[in-house]
Amino acid sequence: MPTTARELTVLDAACCGDGAARPMELAEAERLAGLLKAVADPARLRLLSLVARSADGEACICDLTAPVGLSQPTVSHHMRVLVEAGLLAREQRGRWAYYRLVPGASETVAAAFLDSFRPR
Amino acid sequence: MPTTARELTVLDAACCGDGAARPMELAEAERLAGLLKAVADPARLRLLSLVARSADGEACICDLTAPVGLSQPTVSHHMRVLVEAGLLAREQRGRWAYYRLVPGASETVAAAFLDSFRPR
Repeated sequence: MPTTARELTVLDAACCGDGAARPMELAEAERLAGLLKAVADPARLRLLSLVARSADGEACICDLTAPVGLSQPTVSHHMRVLVEAGLLAREQRGRWAYYRLVPGASETVAAAFLDSFRPR
Repeated sequence: MPTTARELTVLDAACCGDGAARPMELAEAERLAGLLKAVADPARLRLLSLVARSADGEACICDLTAPVGLSQPTVSHHMRVLVEAGLLAREQRGRWAYYRLVPGASETVAAAFLDSFRPR
């Protein structure tokens, strides 16, 4: 009796014709979905845009709460998600945390996303 | 007393220095987050890749279940989300539904995503 999704897939695949297409690998799909989930949130998109538009490409947490109308704990949570996804870099300086975009990170996510729509 | 997120934002904005950046508009952020949520799911990414890789760019629902190891009701749910997001087009022919990518839709999402990272 099959007990994992992988085993189920292998068994079910026996029903497919020889010419059936193969989907993106599950591990790659899970990785990409995780990155997309990190940005699939209106507050996080607005916070990213704020950092991107900051005069010197760097934003203090103290300047992020007012423009998006959210509390500092809420903003800190969103920023942590974006740092963990590799989209933002965080630097603590004294009392405040400062954030910058990680160069190339958004382009990597966009390219992986577009790749899932590409014929093989 | 402020009663909406927009009113709160306007009031809070009074605290910001003149040089403070402005975030992406809330309505635009909500629209883009909705599109990203539609694809931020491993099963939906795999289904999109299957349609994209189908020999003639078209896939029958009957050929989608086995490669991803999911039931037809589950696959139908995921396909409906992708159709509603404007990423897939659906055509019913007899017993089966057939799916194609909507031309340019993935590029539009990727461009909007990248735009949120761009300085102004």
